[in-house]
Amino acid sequence: MTTSYSLKVADARFGGFVRLLFRWRASFYKLLYKELLVYLVLYFVLSATYRIVLNGRQREYFEDISLFCNKHTDLIPVAFLLGFYVSVVFTRWWQQYTCIPWPDRIAALIGCSVHGEDHRGRLIRRTLVRYVNLATLLIMRSISTAVYKRFPTMNHVVEAGFMMPSELKDYDQLDSPHNKFWLPLNWFCNLVTKCRKEGRVEDPYTFRALIEESNNIRGSLAMLYSYDWISVPLVYTQVVTVAVYTFFVSCLMGRQWLDPGKGYTGHEVDLYFPIFTVLQFLFYMGWLKVAEQLINPFGQDDDDFETNWCIDRNLQISYLAVDDLYMTNPALERDIYWN
Amino acid sequence: MTTSYSLKVADARFGGFVRLLFRWRASFYKLLYKELLVYLVLYFVLSATYRIVLNGRQREYFEDISLFCNKHTDLIPVAFLLGFYVSVVFTRWWQQYTCIPWPDRIAALIGCSVHGEDHRGRLIRRTLVRYVNLATLLIMRSISTAVYKRFPTMNHVVEAGFMMPSELKDYDQLDSPHNKFWLPLNWFCNLVTKCRKEGRVEDPYTFRALIEESNNIRGSLAMLYSYDWISVPLVYTQVVTVAVYTFFVSCLMGRQWLDPGKGYTGHEVDLYFPIFTVLQFLFYMGWLKVAEQLINPFGQDDDDFETNWCIDRNLQISYLAVDDLYMTNPALERDIYWN
Amino acid sequence: MTTSYSLKVADARFGGFVRLLFRWRASFYKLLYKELLVYLVLYFVLSATYRIVLNGRQREYFEDISLFCNKHTDLIPVAFLLGFYVSVVFTRWWQQYTCIPWPDRIAALIGCSVHGEDHRGRLIRRTLVRYVNLATLLIMRSISTAVYKRFPTMNHVVEAGFMMPSELKDYDQLDSPHNKFWLPLNWFCNLVTKCRKEGRVEDPYTFRALIEESNNIRGSLAMLYSYDWISVPLVYTQVVTVAVYTFFVSCLMGRQWLDPGKGYTGHEVDLYFPIFTVLQFLFYMGWLKVAEQLINPFGQDDDDFETNWCIDRNLQISYLAVDDLYMTNPALERDIYWN
Amino acid sequence: MTTSYSLKVADARFGGFVRLLFRWRASFYKLLYKELLVYLVLYFVLSATYRIVLNGRQREYFEDISLFCNKHTDLIPVAFLLGFYVSVVFTRWWQQYTCIPWPDRIAALIGCSVHGEDHRGRLIRRTLVRYVNLATLLIMRSISTAVYKRFPTMNHVVEAGFMMPSELKDYDQLDSPHNKFWLPLNWFCNLVTKCRKEGRVEDPYTFRALIEESNNIRGSLAMLYSYDWISVPLVYTQVVTVAVYTFFVSCLMGRQWLDPGKGYTGHEVDLYFPIFTVLQFLFYMGWLKVAEQLINPFGQDDDDFETNWCIDRNLQISYLAVDDLYMTNPALERDIYWN
Amino acid sequence: MTTSYSLKVADARFGGFVRLLFRWRASFYKLLYKELLVYLVLYFVLSATYRIVLNGRQREYFEDISLFCNKHTDLIPVAFLLGFYVSVVFTRWWQQYTCIPWPDRIAALIGCSVHGEDHRGRLIRRTLVRYVNLATLLIMRSISTAVYKRFPTMNHVVEAGFMMPSELKDYDQLDSPHNKFWLPLNWFCNLVTKCRKEGRVEDPYTFRALIEESNNIRGSLAMLYSYDWISVPLVYTQVVTVAVYTFFVSCLMGRQWLDPGKGYTGHEVDLYFPIFTVLQFLFYMGWLKVAEQLINPFGQDDDDFETNWCIDRNLQISYLAVDDLYMTNPALERDIYWN
Repeated sequence: MTTSYSLKVADARFGGFVRLLFRWRASFYKLLYKELLVYLVLYFVLSATYRIVLNGRQREYFEDISLFCNKHTDLIPVAFLLGFYVSVVFTRWWQQYTCIPWPDRIAALIGCSVHGEDHRGRLIRRTLVRYVNLATLLIMRSISTAVYKRFPTMNHVVEAGFMMPSELKDYDQLDSPHNKFWLPLNWFCNLVTKCRKEGRVEDPYTFRALIEESNNIRGSLAMLYSYDWISVPLVYTQVVTVAVYTFFVSCLMGRQWLDPGKGYTGHEVDLYFPIFTVLQFLFYMGWLKVAEQLINPFGQDDDDFETNWCIDRNLQISYLAVDDLYMTNPALERDIYWN
Repeated sequence: MTTSYSLKVADARFGGFVRLLFRWRASFYKLLYKELLVYLVLYFVLSATYRIVLNGRQREYFEDISLFCNKHTDLIPVAFLLGFYVSVVFTRWWQQYTCIPWPDRIAALIGCSVHGEDHRGRLIRRTLVRYVNLATLLIMRSISTAVYKRFPTMNHVVEAGFMMPSELKDYDQLDSPHNKFWLPLNWFCNLVTKCRKEGRVEDPYTFRALIEESNNIRGSLAMLYSYDWISVPLVYTQVVTVAVYTFFVSCLMGRQWLDPGKGYTGHEVDLYFPIFTVLQFLFYMGWLKVAEQLINPFGQDDDDFETNWCIDRNLQISYLAVDDLYMTNPALERDIYWN
Repeated sequence: MTTSYSLKVADARFGGFVRLLFRWRASFYKLLYKELLVYLVLYFVLSATYRIVLNGRQREYFEDISLFCNKHTDLIPVAFLLGFYVSVVFTRWWQQYTCIPWPDRIAALIGCSVHGEDHRGRLIRRTLVRYVNLATLLIMRSISTAVYKRFPTMNHVVEAGFMMPSELKDYDQLDSPHNKFWLPLNWFCNLVTKCRKEGRVEDPYTFRALIEESNNIRGSLAMLYSYDWISVPLVYTQVVTVAVYTFFVSCLMGRQWLDPGKGYTGHEVDLYFPIFTVLQFLFYMGWLKVAEQLINPFGQDDDDFETNWCIDRNLQISYLAVDDLYMTNPALERDIYWN
Repeated sequence: MTTSYSLKVADARFGGFVRLLFRWRASFYKLLYKELLVYLVLYFVLSATYRIVLNGRQREYFEDISLFCNKHTDLIPVAFLLGFYVSVVFTRWWQQYTCIPWPDRIAALIGCSVHGEDHRGRLIRRTLVRYVNLATLLIMRSISTAVYKRFPTMNHVVEAGFMMPSELKDYDQLDSPHNKFWLPLNWFCNLVTKCRKEGRVEDPYTFRALIEESNNIRGSLAMLYSYDWISVPLVYTQVVTVAVYTFFVSCLMGRQWLDPGKGYTGHEVDLYFPIFTVLQFLFYMGWLKVAEQLINPFGQDDDDFETNWCIDRNLQISYLAVDDLYMTNPALERDIYWN
Repeated sequence: MTTSYSLKVADARFGGFVRLLFRWRASFYKLLYKELLVYLVLYFVLSATYRIVLNGRQREYFEDISLFCNKHTDLIPVAFLLGFYVSVVFTRWWQQYTCIPWPDRIAALIGCSVHGEDHRGRLIRRTLVRYVNLATLLIMRSISTAVYKRFPTMNHVVEAGFMMPSELKDYDQLDSPHNKFWLPLNWFCNLVTKCRKEGRVEDPYTFRALIEESNNIRGSLAMLYSYDWISVPLVYTQVVTVAVYTFFVSCLMGRQWLDPGKGYTGHEVDLYFPIFTVLQFLFYMGWLKVAEQLINPFGQDDDDFETNWCIDRNLQISYLAVDDLYMTNPALERDIYWN
């Protein structure tokens, strides 16, 4: 579920974003604490080995390797890679959001241009918006693990009222190995064409507008499918991941506290706890977690899009718009600035 | 309220942006001075402890930790994180501005395509633009703390003339748990459909144009709602905040003036005041404050969008366009370049 | 006035951009030389103080402070801040250019769809394009210091032929505290509606096209107004400015030539002139000047948009298109590839 | 073939992207292992020379050069160049994807606006969508090595059913040295015009819509052609390539393990294997490989677009939409939320 | 002429981009070799002076200056400036490409909506597309040195068949100091209006479409003109150029090989040739050359757009589309998947 915090940061006040740090849900502590624990255990195992197990010669060798690692971690361009990579992932994340179709536009159009207060008129209008919602659901099932979990089979789709059993039969009969999300939209077009012939859609111009709107939704759904199909190239993700992880593996050795008595530069004091390495772990790993969360926003992370909520909301609003509210508006009255 | 300074920087002159520094309103001094004071108090407490309280051994330990911190603050990639993060926030900020709908377009269209100089015609035109302004207000109430403060209940909306009492009843009766900002726009569509049937809207083409314009406004309002609902992922904001704050916590120790007599590199002189740390505080904290201001531009910061002003301006201009100026234009005259 | 140098860099040749350095107009020398002179004076005052005025102890103290400053100037992330800030400003600068409306499209449309070769037809066509130019001028007056200087009062607008005296009266009578640039565009819509009723505009489709074009121009003008109203947040500009200026203040001390005899690292030689500091001044200050020039492109800088030229060009082309060229085209002839 | 991994990263979990590292297909190991082997061979040849072949004086000279190289590799701005270059290439990569036309929109439009259930009607509809698929195939053949391999001659296109032999004759007869992908789209326009005259397309408005859709596909195809024709400027690609390769050539010498006995800084220990250089090789070369993969996404890399799959899918869906599904939709039934 | 290398990099293979380095045309060697030669000559003159001419004291002074320069070249943020600047220039470069209008769309529309198989019909269709090509040529002449060279006077335009002599007369008579590229497009509109009156254009809807398409081309041409008129601000280009050049001037001294016998850090060995400085020259100067090539893509560089080729191609395709192919399409046949 999405975690909104806009209200909490409406004003730039004293403390500002600091308030956002005292949250657990969707926080980076929650995402990172397991990794950090594992990391600290490994660190202290090494540290204990150095302090307790090793003898003089071994410790010296340990120290040389540690100094060597510390010096060379700087060669790993973590910040650069993460900066550019997260930019790319962030842009795609928001583009995906903007591709989620809302049926409000098409429902409003259907409500005021597919006429007829009779039973069949009502049936047509409800069916048209249902087709749109069904097409959206079919795509969502194929890209969102959350939606797929709720609708594991097409029968669940039928049971939830998005599809009639007879439609499912037609759907199954269509012989095509490819995703068939477009089928309800073609039914939509055909039904609109029939409405035009029956005169329920009164002119070619409005007919065209309905087809155009359905094609726009088709385009959005195809883009959603594309974003799922064509991920950020695997090589890019791997390069960034390897960079971040090897950086921290190298820090395991390189950031060990060495005996201050040996007089190595930068080792005048022994604090036992690798405070700055943990900080770096929080920034860099946290930055990588941003990418992990955003790269597929249709999962079940705390911050993923609430697709199931959208699906329910859209069906309800659609029916309201084309049926309950059909041709209704409050009586006209003079407003208070009339003269 | 927005702070314009475009006029002051119309020309690139001697001094240039320096003139902008002598302002208090919306300035970064105003945003930062409290944090800075707290920071300096903490700094001088530590400094006094070092200079007065601690004895020889303790001071040496203090010095080691200070040198250690100073050396490792460089590991915190503050500039990188802030650069990329503020870019993201800035882009969203301006996109949000472009989503604020202005009713000028639809008012001009209503004014020249919903005909009838009779009382009902006037009533319809005023009602149509009122619906548009009402839908905008409903969204603004839900995303802007400034607007919500002005219209804490729906009765305030009615009292301000954006809604009739009978409309509020219809609005309340509509049984839906979701935001109902779209309801006035559906009334708009239905009323336009009636106009079309009465012949006030003369052709299907103009009818379509009116529906299209209202759908565009619907889309803008939905985007505003989305920007509020789907914030920049919390993890990203937290990572940046933690980076900046831990950087300055680390500087508290690392930038202490140590006894010049000890001969530490970079500590040949004792200026008492941490001048460069304060400068860094101004840049980095100021940069973070840019993000804090922009992440929700619908609050009450000095630089937030003046939503209440927009709401008033829009209602007035809408009524002027469809009513006072209906079918009027100055008498035609020959211009001075006629031949 | 805009400074074009495209032609000079049409080809990538030996020397390339070097040729662009030998210019004064719109150059960064012209923008920077005053600041640089002041800076050098301050530098040499300090330098002379060090070399002549101070005694031994004082010179040592001076040297300590100088070394301290030099070491810490690196803490100021000038390049980072400028890189991201100038990107933002540059993007806005070009977006503003693309919002300047050109009347060519609407003039062409008026010329071929508002019919009638009679006197009234000519009058209407000329008036329509004049309204468009008038609306543009009203916005330009409010955002451009160059245009405002040319048209300090509305009477100047009337005298220049953009407005009739009767129109000014209507304009002044409209009681609204907000910018009234949209008024001529509403007159435009009303006049087009009258043309439609008179049959001069032959069909609803063309009628709609004319309204749509005028609404597009209205949108562009509103965006121009918005860019002027909602500047880049003041905090961002201040943070960058403070960073650049404090960087150079710190360099005043930190880049002093110290006595080579003292054996400070990096002070083996004494060149008297702070050559690299001056270079940095040129890059960083020059980069900041890029932002100063672009942040308001409607001023009177060498590189600002030539708004007054646009206004004149647009009026002339508009009249030509709808009047002189009305329904004219050269006799049709067979082209040379006919068979 | 495209490698999807969206499902694997639907949730940000413990380990996160690490799971992605255990893949061979489309991985950066697969892309890099040959280069890495060659590199290591060269490295160890040099290393063996130093350790075994050279005598005292020669080794000292080797050491001086090695230290010199190591110090100066930092002068090569690899991360910067790659960061900006890969951004550019990535953006173009996705823009190219969005230019691949999908015939779903136009097929739906043809299905509901080119009427007639007779044989000729069916023939026209099938021919229209075939024209669209043919034009797409012609462009794909000229830009995609994978498609060209499948359709090496125009006869293969005919045999695969995208073109009739008579059409190939017309195609060959057209005397033009330029790419003729646009020819089927002009046939499309002419055939639609005939349909309009026959009354199969019922009104000018729908006629226009069909032409518009075909022109949109024409535009997308032209953009695909442009992306292939106007590559990222060769100079840019060369500069980045030279930077990365010379960086690693310089590392060959600079990262040799020198005799710890000589006491060179950073050479206190001898690990034999250049572990950090190999890591850098993976990041930087991997990052460059991202660019190599994305710069032409129409090849046969593991991550290139599956153009052949698209071509087959599109033809099948097109025929289904305009023929099998023509004017069909399931019987209307009351949905489960009816009252 | 554009240099395509897409085919060579279709697959990411062993060696990858390395193959691109063995090219001369459009390569960065070709662009840089002269600058590099001059640079090396200067370098070796200085080097020879140091080694041969100077006496002991002078050499020491030379060494001090060299060390000083070497240390301070790092203060010049070349990579940063180039990274941001080239991004800006690259974006504008591609935007300019997308503004080049292709007449294919409008020619297809003319071919199927300006009717009449008679002589006058043919004449009109050919004239309409010629007007479009003429307008494009007029803009190209004013922005492209390559096109201007080919058409130095308007008579060349007439001779090449883009303009009739009578049209040139009208063109010259039009009294306007501004670029008159828009004139043929207004003739276009007027001629289409006449076609509408004659009934060759059958409905207002198609009429509007033709005007709209011509206005889109007008818009693209105006944008091309704008990109030429409003360059990247001169200050920005100057700042970057000065940064790069002063960097290398400073390297002339700073990268001299000093006497290893003097024991300066980093001068343990004397290789005579400034290998890393030459590499930096290649990257940074090459990067700047990318900008020089892209800043005006309408010149005669190896990688500039082939505007003359476009002009010829467009004229031919236009005539083919509206004349030879008018109302023709192959006989309809059953495709091989018919049942």
